Amino acid sequence: MANKWRQPIQVQMAHTDCTGVVYHAHYLDFMELARSKVLEKACQQNGMSTTQFYENYGFFVVRSVNINYRRPLRLSDQVTVVSEFTSQSPVRMMWQQDIMSGSASSERLCADAQVELAFVGKNMRPKKTPEWLWSLKTEVSE
Amino acid sequence: MANKWRQPIQVQMAHTDCTGVVYHAHYLDFMELARSKVLEKACQQNGMSTTQFYENYGFFVVRSVNINYRRPLRLSDQVTVVSEFTSQSPVRMMWQQDIMSGSASSERLCADAQVELAFVGKNMRPKKTPEWLWSLKTEVSE
Amino acid sequence: MANKWRQPIQVQMAHTDCTGVVYHAHYLDFMELARSKVLEKACQQNGMSTTQFYENYGFFVVRSVNINYRRPLRLSDQVTVVSEFTSQSPVRMMWQQDIMSGSASSERLCADAQVELAFVGKNMRPKKTPEWLWSLKTEVSE
Amino acid sequence: MANKWRQPIQVQMAHTDCTGVVYHAHYLDFMELARSKVLEKACQQNGMSTTQFYENYGFFVVRSVNINYRRPLRLSDQVTVVSEFTSQSPVRMMWQQDIMSGSASSERLCADAQVELAFVGKNMRPKKTPEWLWSLKTEVSE
Repeated sequence: MANKWRQPIQVQMAHTDCTGVVYHAHYLDFMELARSKVLEKACQQNGMSTTQFYENYGFFVVRSVNINYRRPLRLSDQVTVVSEFTSQSPVRMMWQQDIMSGSASSERLCADAQVELAFVGKNMRPKKTPEWLWSLKTEVSE
Repeated sequence: MANKWRQPIQVQMAHTDCTGVVYHAHYLDFMELARSKVLEKACQQNGMSTTQFYENYGFFVVRSVNINYRRPLRLSDQVTVVSEFTSQSPVRMMWQQDIMSGSASSERLCADAQVELAFVGKNMRPKKTPEWLWSLKTEVSE
Repeated sequence: MANKWRQPIQVQMAHTDCTGVVYHAHYLDFMELARSKVLEKACQQNGMSTTQFYENYGFFVVRSVNINYRRPLRLSDQVTVVSEFTSQSPVRMMWQQDIMSGSASSERLCADAQVELAFVGKNMRPKKTPEWLWSLKTEVSE
Repeated sequence: MANKWRQPIQVQMAHTDCTGVVYHAHYLDFMELARSKVLEKACQQNGMSTTQFYENYGFFVVRSVNINYRRPLRLSDQVTVVSEFTSQSPVRMMWQQDIMSGSASSERLCADAQVELAFVGKNMRPKKTPEWLWSLKTEVSE
């Protein structure tokens, strides 16, 4: 079964705007953080740091985001980003990412998104992801 | 015919990330800026400042964003956000927003997005947009 | 003896700029996060959430920042913000905040700052801090 | 006499936080924007784009910021950043930057800062600024 990774994040002052809630663009930061923590785990399981990964392989760029905002988030809220691969090819990856608030027993969906990534080399040209990243879907610890 | 508003923006250091290009979440800031300038014009044509509008009516919150990233943007790039209403109801508005780079004679599409807004009062509850905003689509000067 | 609070933070893509290092304004976010976590602990020891604190008392606004940037920070770096009260009056607080990188045994100073805060009510007017906040300097657990 | 450059900026939603005013770290973005526009003019007077400048010479990194926040800024406020060189050496530059609000006839000081920059090459090592930048103080048009 595919993994779902859970990344806790707390809303900071810098995330909010003058309507009193989290500014919509910062949800993308939350999701980027969650994905990078999964990549970090995958790198660790393959004996390298993410810095070494960026140096030796390349990095992911965002090709598309489709996000629905369902409930506002406020200062100091504890949120959890639940991330899951939904598909991948040698050069692309699709993620489903849900932003939840509240405690585990009464979680509420605050936003849900599909995020498409492409893998590129330092020259920003498309590149195949390293094969061991393919196992990420099921074998990287949550 | 429906208006298309053109908002010039220059890429600043704060917009970029360590891959050398504009960080994906900042495209949402560019589009937010472009929409707020249209609102500003609509308010001016109705004899009020945007501050008065927020005080007396309410504000728009983003309900969904569907964005495709097509070409990277770099430091100092001059971009133009081309914004257009595609539909609206008393409580919702749909925008098409295209981010272009290059000069007018050789513009290239760097990102395109559909953005759905809802209108809310200060209590964050849905509210009808003021009727004069309905004329925005065709009557507000570009 | 005065407390020093240690707040770990990991550098994310959103913090960096196209020079390859953390954009200078984001150091202020790191320090704001560290101070808010201290406030959270103080609130918890007094049986309230930070949200209740903001509702019932007010909040801190930054009056001045004096920051020296000493070493660059890069993507994925683990940093620690070391925060300490240096003085306080009924309406003002001074913090010394040092941003360190590396492991505890070989920490290096990357930035150091003095931050002056004022306490204000919801109307943004100066207000006395609640008395129990005065004990924060020595009695709030690290 | 030394130049003072005036850079208009309008406060956007992304600049504000849930206290209703501009988040303190974004003042540093305003000042960075103002400095980069001066650099752009200097480059233009020397027949190059800022991109060419970054490629061929290097860039400025912030060594220290000393900023006083005096009056809050709010959504849609029109501000002007008034920037001036106060001193420079082959490898460092000092700026005085004042953030003003209101119309020219009744400007009010909202923040003032001293910003110290160092010039570095792509390897992030200190480097001498090109000589023609020395003339920036008096000869670059406002």
